[in-house]
Amino acid sequence: MKIEAVDFYYLAMPEILDIADGSQDLLLVRLQAGPHVGWGECEASPLPSIAALVSPMSHGACKPIRDSVLGQRLDDVADIDRIGQLVRVNSMDLLQADHALSGIDSAMWDLLGRRLQAPAWQLLGFARAEPRLPYASVLFGDTPPETREKARGIRARGFRAAKFGWGPYGRSTVAADADQVAAAREGLGDDGVLLVDAGTVFGHDVEAAAARLPALQAARATWLEEPFVSGALAAYRELARRSAIPLAGGEGSHNEDMARTMIDHGGLGYVQIDAGRIGGIAPARRVADYARANGVVYVNHTFTSHLSLSASLQPYAGDAADAICEYPVELKPLAWEITREHILPDVDGRVRPPDAPGLGLTPDLAAARRYLLDVEIAVGGQTLYRTPALTD
Amino acid sequence: MKIEAVDFYYLAMPEILDIADGSQDLLLVRLQAGPHVGWGECEASPLPSIAALVSPMSHGACKPIRDSVLGQRLDDVADIDRIGQLVRVNSMDLLQADHALSGIDSAMWDLLGRRLQAPAWQLLGFARAEPRLPYASVLFGDTPPETREKARGIRARGFRAAKFGWGPYGRSTVAADADQVAAAREGLGDDGVLLVDAGTVFGHDVEAAAARLPALQAARATWLEEPFVSGALAAYRELARRSAIPLAGGEGSHNEDMARTMIDHGGLGYVQIDAGRIGGIAPARRVADYARANGVVYVNHTFTSHLSLSASLQPYAGDAADAICEYPVELKPLAWEITREHILPDVDGRVRPPDAPGLGLTPDLAAARRYLLDVEIAVGGQTLYRTPALTD
Repeated sequence: MKIEAVDFYYLAMPEILDIADGSQDLLLVRLQAGPHVGWGECEASPLPSIAALVSPMSHGACKPIRDSVLGQRLDDVADIDRIGQLVRVNSMDLLQADHALSGIDSAMWDLLGRRLQAPAWQLLGFARAEPRLPYASVLFGDTPPETREKARGIRARGFRAAKFGWGPYGRSTVAADADQVAAAREGLGDDGVLLVDAGTVFGHDVEAAAARLPALQAARATWLEEPFVSGALAAYRELARRSAIPLAGGEGSHNEDMARTMIDHGGLGYVQIDAGRIGGIAPARRVADYARANGVVYVNHTFTSHLSLSASLQPYAGDAADAICEYPVELKPLAWEITREHILPDVDGRVRPPDAPGLGLTPDLAAARRYLLDVEIAVGGQTLYRTPALTD
Repeated sequence: MKIEAVDFYYLAMPEILDIADGSQDLLLVRLQAGPHVGWGECEASPLPSIAALVSPMSHGACKPIRDSVLGQRLDDVADIDRIGQLVRVNSMDLLQADHALSGIDSAMWDLLGRRLQAPAWQLLGFARAEPRLPYASVLFGDTPPETREKARGIRARGFRAAKFGWGPYGRSTVAADADQVAAAREGLGDDGVLLVDAGTVFGHDVEAAAARLPALQAARATWLEEPFVSGALAAYRELARRSAIPLAGGEGSHNEDMARTMIDHGGLGYVQIDAGRIGGIAPARRVADYARANGVVYVNHTFTSHLSLSASLQPYAGDAADAICEYPVELKPLAWEITREHILPDVDGRVRPPDAPGLGLTPDLAAARRYLLDVEIAVGGQTLYRTPALTD
């Protein structure tokens, strides 16, 4: 069967706040092949991604993504790899292509899984989806007491692990950051799993990051995430050498090579991959295999909807039970309402990707339409894109 | 003085061919601050880059580029670095941002240079712009005789160095590629400088690339360029270990960290940087310094207009005389006509960036208007971008 339609839908909250909350808009992907439909999501700026889908060709290695997708056969997993590779070759010089491809790849797994009545993780070759310990992923409070209350609330909701990030962290003094981390530990309790996300705030400044290590160690943080921008390998490696706390990073990887490079040369303890950025579930799976073979722990990166969460849990669904996973708990209504079902912790507080065909979640299109922004793009008097009707 | 306008213009040939010729369209950038205007160019897919300029904010680290540029002071070189850093931080999760920033950065150097009546290379701290040996950069012919004729034509035009790339190379047999390379050497003559560009055709396949090495060595190629995709570090390193011919690569780097990583871990002899992709002249200059300090030769990557060529020659203008530079000689009319002046070889066959304010070239706006494609982008009923008038 052939891919007959690939449509992007730009959904957004009525108001977008200037905070590090990635759940305020989303780019929903609908793929159609014969009678089958699949859904995916790009963790990406929606408008440039739509432009990447439809942009006129610049030259032989800079083509619009839809030219490599429409009309392609999609009958098995090998087709997904083949189409992904077509996009990477034909759109090599179109930078936004990897982010836009990510949602298409996820939608291909969803469509194929629905057609074959198999969860994506089964198509990936996993015998079962192991339970994961979800860490509640939130922003630091503006003050230590706020952070402490957030941590208590998270424990009260049944989470044993929590990640605090961004907000004021790294933006004032070492002492202030120490207070924040101590407050998070206090609120979480002694037996909680505490993770800290610096949100790239130190840029390439190893000394600034190193100054925060004693407080992180005192609070028994499981990791320090993204002290530096993705790809700042020398800084990562140097800090890893000095740190008793493992480093986590890699969410910025928009292709497999970048993630491998972080694993090979960044000194990471944990590599965090967003299937909505790295080109989809297929390359994420290969990175998961590579991480395992190289003694680095693979973890999903997810800060948006449960459709994204499902996609990002698939690539390492078969990894050892009880490995941790990121689980956003401060989703805006859009990101929560966009799926009818949700991935919820079981009685033991564990989550796993759905045991249902494809990504295992049904988009709530009535909800989606409430957030839909119509997009229209015209070049040289020709309309290249106009948001199509959002239907099953 | 403050930046009051940043406008992107999408220019294209009437017909775009499915070949590796990057000169078929271009994205012209106009920057205005007070009475001053500067021009730059993004080596990028135009439509997604325009979208990156105006896209609505997704969250605190995914903002439209113009929000970090408009209203900023631009009085000295430090402001250029500061604005570039603002864009990188505020648009961290907007993948296309680096490509779009590149033309803005170049336009800032142009504007500041015009205002201070100094060439960009002087603002970069170079005492003079050294002459470079230009290599005529062309695609392989479809057949060895065609390639031989191309090489002869290049010599007849006075070029001593030539690079052949893409086309059939790597797409059929090792013997066919050997014939192509031998034909290029024959046409170029014994004393010509021959470079070969595989155009990433081998993906990650070290053996496929290694099989081409004997013919390259027999033809005394100065380098083998991009056997693999940018960032395929392990493949580059392994091939470099086996090869008597130095490897060249890095044009895909869209930020400074990626280029440094190629230098640190790719085993390159030459690092090729396009100021129109890496974020502009400012980061390219830092990579040039880093390359020199690490024994890797820096070379410009340029496949479009002479405005791009000027921008890409600036970052290493002060490097040792007679180092080579890429010089495209198969430009489409658009890419040739877009500037009134051109960077031409002197009587000794050498080129250098213009000894004139800024990038030293004047856009021919009458010519540009003949290729201009009007772009209109609307989101949620609001027009976010409509191509403005193209004037001085």
